[in-house]
Amino acid sequence: QPCGPDLVCGHPEFKWGRLKSLFYPLTFLRLSVVSPAERIRFILGEEDDGPPPPQLFTELDELLAVDGHEMEWKETARWIKFEEKVEKGGERWSKPHVATLSLHSLMELKRCIEKGTIMLDLEASSLQQVVEIITDNQIETGQLNRDLREKVMYTLLRKHRHQTKKSNLRSLADIGKSVSSASRLFSNQENGSPTTAHRNFTSNSLNDFSDKPEKDQLRNKFMKKLPRDAEASNVLVGEVDFLETSFVAFVRLQQAVMLGALTEVPVPTRFLFVLLGPKGKAKSYREIGRAIATLMSDEVFHDIAYKAKDRQDLLAGIEEFLEEVIVLPPGEWDPNIRIEPPKTLPSPDKRKNMYAGLEAPQMNGDAPHDDGGGGGHQVGEELQRTKRFCGGLVLDIKRKLPFFASDFYDALHIQSLSAILFIYLGTVTNAITFGGLLGDATENMQGVLESFLGTALTGAVFCLLAGQPLTILSSTGPVLVFERLLFNFSKDNDFNYLEFRLWIGLWSAFLCLVLVATDASFLVQYFTRFTEEGFSALISFIFIYDAFKKMIKLAHHDPINSDYDPNLITQYDCRCLPGNSSVDLDILAMSNSTDLPVNATWASLTRQQCVTYGGELVGEACGYVPDIALMSLILFFGTYICSMALKKFKTSRFFPTKVRKLISDFAIILTILLFCGVDALVGVETPKLIVPSEFKPTSPLRGWFVPPFGGNPWWVYLAALLPALLVTILIFMDQQITAVIVNRKEHKLKKGAGYHLDLFWVAILMIVCSFMGLPWYVAATVISIAHIDSLKMETETSAPGEQPKFLGVREQRVTGIFVFLLTGLSVFMAPILKFIPMPVLYGVFLYMGVASLNGVQFMDRLMLLLMPAKHQPDLIYLRHVPQRRIHLFTFLQVVCLALLWILKSTVAAIIFPVMILALVAVRKAMDYVFSQHDLGYLDDVIPEKDKKKKEDEKKKKHKKKGSIDSEMEFVSEYPYHDNVPSIKISMETMEHEPMLGNKSEDSEYEK
Amino acid sequence: QPCGPDLVCGHPEFKWGRLKSLFYPLTFLRLSVVSPAERIRFILGEEDDGPPPPQLFTELDELLAVDGHEMEWKETARWIKFEEKVEKGGERWSKPHVATLSLHSLMELKRCIEKGTIMLDLEASSLQQVVEIITDNQIETGQLNRDLREKVMYTLLRKHRHQTKKSNLRSLADIGKSVSSASRLFSNQENGSPTTAHRNFTSNSLNDFSDKPEKDQLRNKFMKKLPRDAEASNVLVGEVDFLETSFVAFVRLQQAVMLGALTEVPVPTRFLFVLLGPKGKAKSYREIGRAIATLMSDEVFHDIAYKAKDRQDLLAGIEEFLEEVIVLPPGEWDPNIRIEPPKTLPSPDKRKNMYAGLEAPQMNGDAPHDDGGGGGHQVGEELQRTKRFCGGLVLDIKRKLPFFASDFYDALHIQSLSAILFIYLGTVTNAITFGGLLGDATENMQGVLESFLGTALTGAVFCLLAGQPLTILSSTGPVLVFERLLFNFSKDNDFNYLEFRLWIGLWSAFLCLVLVATDASFLVQYFTRFTEEGFSALISFIFIYDAFKKMIKLAHHDPINSDYDPNLITQYDCRCLPGNSSVDLDILAMSNSTDLPVNATWASLTRQQCVTYGGELVGEACGYVPDIALMSLILFFGTYICSMALKKFKTSRFFPTKVRKLISDFAIILTILLFCGVDALVGVETPKLIVPSEFKPTSPLRGWFVPPFGGNPWWVYLAALLPALLVTILIFMDQQITAVIVNRKEHKLKKGAGYHLDLFWVAILMIVCSFMGLPWYVAATVISIAHIDSLKMETETSAPGEQPKFLGVREQRVTGIFVFLLTGLSVFMAPILKFIPMPVLYGVFLYMGVASLNGVQFMDRLMLLLMPAKHQPDLIYLRHVPQRRIHLFTFLQVVCLALLWILKSTVAAIIFPVMILALVAVRKAMDYVFSQHDLGYLDDVIPEKDKKKKEDEKKKKHKKKGSIDSEMEFVSEYPYHDNVPSIKISMETMEHEPMLGNKSEDSEYEK
Repeated sequence: QPCGPDLVCGHPEFKWGRLKSLFYPLTFLRLSVVSPAERIRFILGEEDDGPPPPQLFTELDELLAVDGHEMEWKETARWIKFEEKVEKGGERWSKPHVATLSLHSLMELKRCIEKGTIMLDLEASSLQQVVEIITDNQIETGQLNRDLREKVMYTLLRKHRHQTKKSNLRSLADIGKSVSSASRLFSNQENGSPTTAHRNFTSNSLNDFSDKPEKDQLRNKFMKKLPRDAEASNVLVGEVDFLETSFVAFVRLQQAVMLGALTEVPVPTRFLFVLLGPKGKAKSYREIGRAIATLMSDEVFHDIAYKAKDRQDLLAGIEEFLEEVIVLPPGEWDPNIRIEPPKTLPSPDKRKNMYAGLEAPQMNGDAPHDDGGGGGHQVGEELQRTKRFCGGLVLDIKRKLPFFASDFYDALHIQSLSAILFIYLGTVTNAITFGGLLGDATENMQGVLESFLGTALTGAVFCLLAGQPLTILSSTGPVLVFERLLFNFSKDNDFNYLEFRLWIGLWSAFLCLVLVATDASFLVQYFTRFTEEGFSALISFIFIYDAFKKMIKLAHHDPINSDYDPNLITQYDCRCLPGNSSVDLDILAMSNSTDLPVNATWASLTRQQCVTYGGELVGEACGYVPDIALMSLILFFGTYICSMALKKFKTSRFFPTKVRKLISDFAIILTILLFCGVDALVGVETPKLIVPSEFKPTSPLRGWFVPPFGGNPWWVYLAALLPALLVTILIFMDQQITAVIVNRKEHKLKKGAGYHLDLFWVAILMIVCSFMGLPWYVAATVISIAHIDSLKMETETSAPGEQPKFLGVREQRVTGIFVFLLTGLSVFMAPILKFIPMPVLYGVFLYMGVASLNGVQFMDRLMLLLMPAKHQPDLIYLRHVPQRRIHLFTFLQVVCLALLWILKSTVAAIIFPVMILALVAVRKAMDYVFSQHDLGYLDDVIPEKDKKKKEDEKKKKHKKKGSIDSEMEFVSEYPYHDNVPSIKISMETMEHEPMLGNKSEDSEYEK
Repeated sequence: QPCGPDLVCGHPEFKWGRLKSLFYPLTFLRLSVVSPAERIRFILGEEDDGPPPPQLFTELDELLAVDGHEMEWKETARWIKFEEKVEKGGERWSKPHVATLSLHSLMELKRCIEKGTIMLDLEASSLQQVVEIITDNQIETGQLNRDLREKVMYTLLRKHRHQTKKSNLRSLADIGKSVSSASRLFSNQENGSPTTAHRNFTSNSLNDFSDKPEKDQLRNKFMKKLPRDAEASNVLVGEVDFLETSFVAFVRLQQAVMLGALTEVPVPTRFLFVLLGPKGKAKSYREIGRAIATLMSDEVFHDIAYKAKDRQDLLAGIEEFLEEVIVLPPGEWDPNIRIEPPKTLPSPDKRKNMYAGLEAPQMNGDAPHDDGGGGGHQVGEELQRTKRFCGGLVLDIKRKLPFFASDFYDALHIQSLSAILFIYLGTVTNAITFGGLLGDATENMQGVLESFLGTALTGAVFCLLAGQPLTILSSTGPVLVFERLLFNFSKDNDFNYLEFRLWIGLWSAFLCLVLVATDASFLVQYFTRFTEEGFSALISFIFIYDAFKKMIKLAHHDPINSDYDPNLITQYDCRCLPGNSSVDLDILAMSNSTDLPVNATWASLTRQQCVTYGGELVGEACGYVPDIALMSLILFFGTYICSMALKKFKTSRFFPTKVRKLISDFAIILTILLFCGVDALVGVETPKLIVPSEFKPTSPLRGWFVPPFGGNPWWVYLAALLPALLVTILIFMDQQITAVIVNRKEHKLKKGAGYHLDLFWVAILMIVCSFMGLPWYVAATVISIAHIDSLKMETETSAPGEQPKFLGVREQRVTGIFVFLLTGLSVFMAPILKFIPMPVLYGVFLYMGVASLNGVQFMDRLMLLLMPAKHQPDLIYLRHVPQRRIHLFTFLQVVCLALLWILKSTVAAIIFPVMILALVAVRKAMDYVFSQHDLGYLDDVIPEKDKKKKEDEKKKKHKKKGSIDSEMEFVSEYPYHDNVPSIKISMETMEHEPMLGNKSEDSEYEK
């Protein structure tokens, strides 16, 4: 019975109508008692006694003649989840891609399964044995002529060649060999040089077809992509000249057996699909092979294949596959495009459950709920109200205590080092700028050294003992503003500032402890994305704004002479002349109070000396400082651009992933080192980082302990309660918004949060700081986020084409502790740190501000304003909310932020934290402007990706139910209110005065 | 007869096995005489009497209840080529995407076509009429109960709502309305505010269902995406409660009729598909609607639908579609991902021809040929040897003459203005730098003014009269080197330089004319990609190298004082003191020969005066110039980064396409303006562009005409032939490689090339220049490419989702002529041009150098060296050539370039053009190292994209033939040797001396 020209296993009588003839036999199915759907339900619904079926590695081997030699089995493709093809000419693996099939090949495969030999749970221990059994079976059933037995067996036992991967280095080394070998071959070669063609195949002849894995198999690095219990399915297809009908067999072995060098990797074989056919249709055979291989890598069919009892089960599996298949119209797609694996995939469980009779479990979280806009946070375990005294605190301690040991040994990774260096530099920079500002605001009652000491002390204690050691404590803008006002108030009323402050601190700490005891942190859940994004975007803007402001300040400090003419250099100078009120230099030099040399003249004085002794600086050059401003600008933008570029280097194609990741992790450090180098090379005297080098209070008027009594009248101790209330709101807001962001679900933290414990330690440390006259510290958003980002972990191995999964954050206490220890030790590291130019650090600030705006939905929506509708990205809310509503929402948010910005620039800045609470009210008012449907999309907190997936799942569910997809549909499609904020928030520099006050400026530039 | 739960048009008796039951009726087909394949062959093979079927606009309308009102037809998707869906919530069109279907819906559609009413060539003039006819038909055939007639008709004639597009501005304006409307609505709304829900639908009730297009239809901007003769196909699907079986009709009208507001755009309707069914399966109906709409937008089915004679023809069309369909496995793809339209699509003609019995015509160009590596250029018409005297030249003139008029009116476009400004600045910069260098090399016998005059004269004449007016003439490096050697030789031997040079020029021109007369340009075809890329990469590297070298030179000219300490400013100065050999100032001031004031003292002198009169500059500040070097650096890198960013702005999402394109086109100009502004704002005296402002020869020793006799002995006139030979090679190589690059096929030039005519004019202009003592000019690669890039045209309208097509280059003579006229006039534009800082122009040079490396395969291969195999892009040669062979090829190319670079840096530089010929020999030698197969992929000249397409086509062909896809396959797959170089070559600055010689430096900075 010769096959038709187009059919591999088809009825020979039909020349056309492959589909027809392929579907035709299905009509017989009607007669059988069990329908395919019932079959699948039965197969998949079986009670699972053992573990789930193991992962399959599928390999497609084709019978090919290489270099005119005899036919051999050559590996041409492989599957774990996605297809990888051997680029024949390139002698390499293609990128993993989605296996696009033709409907035709699937139909032909079905015919093959219908007609061919099916052997389930065959007991065999070698390939020879398997081949014998299937050949004999074909002969018995009359499908194969007995004379051909030897030929078929010989063919099936031909040796196998696998495509093994070579390192780039080795292939570079090959170049040398190629050159030398090429010099011997002075003739035109047709198909690659034979001398090298054999090199990267592992081959074994029939004679030594051992059942043990070969060296090359064991050496294969691909093995690490597979789990340990993986099994192989081998697909062998090929054309031979002695057959007139096709020879098809599908074998499942009773036990997975290592069949020698049959498989590329040393994995035991469970399935074997063989298709031999007459000459002329190799392409068809290959397509059928690809079809069965794709089926075997399909999770549902894979289960069916493991559990199938007979041929009909397999056919039902193919039916199910065809039901779910996605079809691309031929006119709209080029079948030769290799489709890259998608970022997310629908879970196969849904398909399975549909048949297994199980509805997908209706998770509580998944159930749509349409609560008012005010609430919306999913109440996590950590934030539930216990209604017991200190209940939350006790729970926090209970939750965190078991992890305490692991909080130390989990830190053993190179990544931690990078995190420590990066965060250390951020912390030190912050300590210095805030220290300078505080010193300026409080007439040095708190200065840079207090800032260093306080940062080191509170940070280290917090990281050692708090509930969430990933949080980094730092001075913040609102606190700074408060201190400034407090100092001025004390001065005006002749209060003892430090003592007054001590009492405010004590009251605030007390109030915070009350909040801890009453589990008040549960209130945090009433902030929505609107509030959080408003807060975070504002802080990021301030960060960016301040970076530029500081640079401008710097440029004003070292002005450029725009009118400079190189030709007139002879006319430019700056001389020191005696002023009207100047002292007599000779007398000064005599007295030993100065460092002037004895024969000092006015002209020989330095600029500073001249000013000090009342001299006058005269000359065109006096007002200008050359090069420094421009060099600072270069360092500033250079640092920003370079750190951005290095951070993005992770997604480039160059170098192995590990190297790229390392560069990306150390991006900031590398950039800082690079630009310190540039600065040193150019040699211009740019302002440098100055850390205090002596350990004593900045002001001589104070000591390291603030006595609680004696400085102020008694009623002041009680009156301190009023400002303390304000401080408490401030501390609570600053601390808890950051804590929520750090503890977001998307960070996949495994050791749980500790909102109450965190606040407890903030309060305790506040008491300590108040007594020691150090600044108060709360969680700093930008640095905490940077800390988490630098500690993120991803899966290292996954099936080719699968996205690496974000595993979580390296949760530990070591990095934080080290950061603050180093900060404390920085006092002794001044000789090293003094090489870091300030503009470089400002560049890092700019980078942090911009980076923390990434992924903030508010920014995305701002950008939408500039985009024509057709170029807008496919965001989930754009699909569901009319554009004008989105723009209105954005507009209202911008108005709120603008008001906040204006507020923080005026004297009313002290009520800033209270105003953030007002944002919640604004959001509540929005309920009257926007429909709940719109708000659900614009103001929820599920990150974009998960969201779309969820929607898709819902859609799929709808599809299954065949429900009416109308405008009404959305009523039941309220997005899932998950309350993890998905935005990136930033920072602590919310001060109203330039970060580089006159005080700090002087100390930095002129010391 | 109630339908089964899952089946729309299925046999009610089967609950499962949709596929089965859907395919089942096909078995009847066997009995019919004509098979589907024969049918399609018959349909598509018909003699085409009229024009091809018009483009179809397909609209899917669903029966939906909006806001609880009565049901209406609402547009939910549309197709021209790709699907666009209405985002219901978003009230907007989705991005065009590939319509992914389920196999299931296709099968159901087939059942519908099998069972439903099919009316082909129905004569009707209104929707009412059509609806009556199909309803009556269903009643006649017993498919519809007579009682339901009115209900069905009423439903089908319900009003239609279309999704119309709104501008971004209008939707912004809506925000205001929303706010005001929202303030009135202080209640929780469920589904968007009703006040706005109606706004962007056009609606018309049944009563006024006119047959004329409505205002909103006519106003619809989408109309411009459709050709004028487009017709519509309307798909109406919906569920109703009164039907128990589905009501299906497929109608093709005899004449396309405008059915009132049925369609979104005012296009007459040709096809109508109606599917009404019982409640509960709206989703299924929609999917069927999508399936038929996708089929209608499929080019092959579209033809069949127009030509079908009966139901079986349509069914055969669906069969054909299913045959070609691409299947994605469900486990590897998420059906909810909207697939972006691919960049390229396979031609539908192949599918059509397969059935029409026509083999795809075997193009001559497509036939693989495996000639040796030395050749390889497809001999274009322009380069064929005529073997007649001046045959090529005559053909060139004949070819170009008919286009002469259009060469002027084709330039009428805003793009031309941008091109003129961009190229003008490049040309002027080149003229100045080369002018400076030439003046330096020839002791001002040729200087900046000669350079301007020569550039303007030759460029304008060439663009006006040459064969390829897109080519830009300029001085080039090799010519410069030659002039320098020639001048020194003349000086050493007491020759008259200009006269000697005149004779060399005359001889060279004569030799060039001989080359023209003998059609010698055909030799150009013997350069392969290897040679061209080597040449072009080298020149790009030199461009980049020179840009940096000039910046470093500039920094050395204005050194920074690294040791500057702002505090010691009183000690820095630079005074002019009388030197040992200095003149008496008083005497000088008395004599009127100087501009010194009478009371001048040494201290009052400027730097230059001081040096001039023999004074001595003393002081620490003398050696340094502040700010200028750093400012130059900022301008240089700023210009480069900004122009790169603006050029890439075209691919961003912001602003409408037109604005983006404008910004991208004017990127360089905008950047130059921006940084001139920055420079002016900072005010630092950076070196500026200086153009000569007086029209006279630079050297007073020469006039504007060089007399041919009298300056040298007679034998010199003959001896000049020897250097003339070298010059001829140089001119020929420089000119023709650039000409080949300009005339590449990928530029889609329609007016033909003119290699011979170009060379003819180069020779003629050489004679003129020699007589006038001006530099010689040949085609400049980088500027010519920039010229072409700035004149590229793309289709403006295409079906949504289709890639805009590159249409070609605005071929005209106007831009070139204007560029050179402006260059000539620049002598009078000195007051404007003097604001352009040189570092900005160097930044533009750097941009040009880097941009011209884009798309050079050699660079891609260099980058491969740094990439691990799995991250390498999917390049065509990586699929077919082993990586080590590729690396070897790259390595050899690097060695060649390194040798060339060393060569050009030594005194042997004069034989540089001859060495490029040596590259051809190296390439020839490679035949012995590489197989022809490998070389075919690495050294051909088809651009990457076309290549892959071609390969895919070939593969498809193989698939059709069912041929053996083995290693052997590649023997017949030798890549098509198209001889258009696909590389970007660059530039003319191949000088060995710094571009910024001392001479020009002085003149630029200190004048």
